[in-house]
Amino acid sequence: MTDLESMGQRAAAAKFELQRLSAEKKNEALSKAAEELLADTKHILEENKRDIIKGEKNGMHPGMIDRLRLTEDRIKGMAEGLNQIIALDDPVGEVLEAFTRPNGLHIHKRRVPLGVIGIIYESRPNVTADAFGLCFKAGNAVILKGGSDAVCSNIAITAAIRRALSACSVCEDAIQLIESTDREVTAQFMKLNRYVDVLIPRGSSGLIQSVVTNSTIPVIETGTGNCHIFVDETADLEKALPIIINAKTQRIGVCNACESLLVHEAVKENFLPALAKAFREHSVEMRADEQIREIITDAIPATDEDYGTEYLDYIISMKTVSSVDEAIAHINKYGTRHSEAILTQNKENADKFLREVDAACVYVNASTRFSDGFEFGFGAEIGISNQKLHARGPMGLKELTSYKYTIEGDGQVRP
Amino acid sequence: MTDLESMGQRAAAAKFELQRLSAEKKNEALSKAAEELLADTKHILEENKRDIIKGEKNGMHPGMIDRLRLTEDRIKGMAEGLNQIIALDDPVGEVLEAFTRPNGLHIHKRRVPLGVIGIIYESRPNVTADAFGLCFKAGNAVILKGGSDAVCSNIAITAAIRRALSACSVCEDAIQLIESTDREVTAQFMKLNRYVDVLIPRGSSGLIQSVVTNSTIPVIETGTGNCHIFVDETADLEKALPIIINAKTQRIGVCNACESLLVHEAVKENFLPALAKAFREHSVEMRADEQIREIITDAIPATDEDYGTEYLDYIISMKTVSSVDEAIAHINKYGTRHSEAILTQNKENADKFLREVDAACVYVNASTRFSDGFEFGFGAEIGISNQKLHARGPMGLKELTSYKYTIEGDGQVRP
Repeated sequence: MTDLESMGQRAAAAKFELQRLSAEKKNEALSKAAEELLADTKHILEENKRDIIKGEKNGMHPGMIDRLRLTEDRIKGMAEGLNQIIALDDPVGEVLEAFTRPNGLHIHKRRVPLGVIGIIYESRPNVTADAFGLCFKAGNAVILKGGSDAVCSNIAITAAIRRALSACSVCEDAIQLIESTDREVTAQFMKLNRYVDVLIPRGSSGLIQSVVTNSTIPVIETGTGNCHIFVDETADLEKALPIIINAKTQRIGVCNACESLLVHEAVKENFLPALAKAFREHSVEMRADEQIREIITDAIPATDEDYGTEYLDYIISMKTVSSVDEAIAHINKYGTRHSEAILTQNKENADKFLREVDAACVYVNASTRFSDGFEFGFGAEIGISNQKLHARGPMGLKELTSYKYTIEGDGQVRP
Repeated sequence: MTDLESMGQRAAAAKFELQRLSAEKKNEALSKAAEELLADTKHILEENKRDIIKGEKNGMHPGMIDRLRLTEDRIKGMAEGLNQIIALDDPVGEVLEAFTRPNGLHIHKRRVPLGVIGIIYESRPNVTADAFGLCFKAGNAVILKGGSDAVCSNIAITAAIRRALSACSVCEDAIQLIESTDREVTAQFMKLNRYVDVLIPRGSSGLIQSVVTNSTIPVIETGTGNCHIFVDETADLEKALPIIINAKTQRIGVCNACESLLVHEAVKENFLPALAKAFREHSVEMRADEQIREIITDAIPATDEDYGTEYLDYIISMKTVSSVDEAIAHINKYGTRHSEAILTQNKENADKFLREVDAACVYVNASTRFSDGFEFGFGAEIGISNQKLHARGPMGLKELTSYKYTIEGDGQVRP
């Protein structure tokens, strides 16, 4: 039996215990896990140091080193994250529908955990604690495959959480970490559909595509966001400027940042000079079509590839359109179904945009940066789904559950 | 550009038109499609005859020939099926949640079509009309890949439906059929995740496994049902007998038929002789463990493989257990998460079974044969999902939709 097979079996065994846990018991374990992370800070930092030394030796990019690095504050942040999950309502057991059929069968549709969730993620070791916390509160066992770069950190964090579970008499296998850094093991993990109910990749679009292509486990795609803002003919241009600057620059490396701007040709003369000035002040490189470059002469010509690129950087692509229909068609062609916005005072165009743009989150007169579990009021999130199956948009605790039908009768048979 | 690529593009274009259609317009098109099928009966039967002649020439099993055969009555049945879908509520546009955030953003969670649905199915040509009808009413474009055996029938049915759509000025590409019988084309279809939002295989477990393994499109698994009935210590044995006979024999070739029986050791003496008599009367072959064979001496020894087999035949596997816990553990090991039943008068055991059995539909004191869209009151169904993601159990119109968030603001930016 391979290690993965045995991990799958242990997770499948754990899920039956986890689905029975009361909210109180789960909260006790989360609280203890937070404590244990804090108590173990020194050891976790030592192990993290080993990862960092290895990363530096391998010439890892300083930005990546920063993502990998843990500090006392970041460990406190992980513990706080677990404590915040305690405050969220336990979704398990909720009755979603209840009805009685003419033959007397009582049918309930009840919320249940998904079961076993697999998560494949990259460098940031805090995902280990965050992902565990959400999956656990929703009654699921989790098998984690973190980045090879962070393996020592992840082992230390997982060990602390498992100790906490054990201290609370909760099955330790609620969290398991694949420690191997062999790519072949990751490939095998994606085929573990016998035990794993859903696989969530978190990280680069390369990682996500690899999981989508190779997994036999149902996948929830998260993350890739080539988000647009369309400045319509009737946009309030004074409000448009701060919205665009916020969506582009408030945090550049995130999936809900704006990557592309569409401008109605009727407003380009009035709007683009001020916008270009603001972009220059924020060091945003502009890549634009010819009509825009007639006004913003220092913009670089945009290629078709630019319109399909999620930069995650101080770069924006820009294009003129002549109607809301053209804007919608462009977005539906180049977008990644994540977050898309229209700035307009025309209710008809706003409604059309909301209805016809194919994306998880569609905005009128607001920044795309609000696509986020906390901002939606769901509490912590496991990611933003941009597929249509199961969950779309911010995925909180409810999105980490399934349902079952229970049918109670008194001897009914089918005629 | 390959044909599939072009079909994908046409479906993706069609979906934007379909999501805007009113319920009235969709119902008009469904009604016209029903009419057109009836009007075209002669041609459809001729084309079906060609499939049947080919099947007979290739030595197709008579049972398969029967599934393949259309008659005037079966075509009337397809037309009736479409007319029944007209009566179902249009799920598109329903507001699932609405709330306002402290910053004034108005958020709505709205039901929307999935977009493009792919369906891969085997011999029965009536699936062509049924699947189209459900997908279309839920606002989706559909790309169908039917069995090679039924290709002439499916082409004729699809052409009739497309004519009806065209007559109603609805985009014909709401239904497209892959006519190629080349397996390589089917393999490529499963990789069309750029255009197809969800793929639903309908047919044998071999087909379903092939799709799960090879598809890069999110899949909804349907169908495989190794369903159990557990006769607990306190079961009302007079009611137990008809429930079991109904679940096993009322229709043997369906996914919600009972395939395996678990009997509490305390009732075996009282119950098994009468049960064996009833099974013999219905020509059901019994494969049982040693304890049961001491009582039912003509039962065949059951192997471990028997307990994992969906027979779809007049065969049942049987096993003694000593507790509800042992029954639950057996079902969670061998079941396919479809439909599972306990027969008991003990409320505690009933609740435990409902909670701990991991299946889409869990029954107390009723036949597993009720796992069905019509029996649940959902109307027609596209299949019974036995995965946990997105939809579980009978999948009706609502399960053929996704949702989107619309967020309306007045200049909000993220702090």
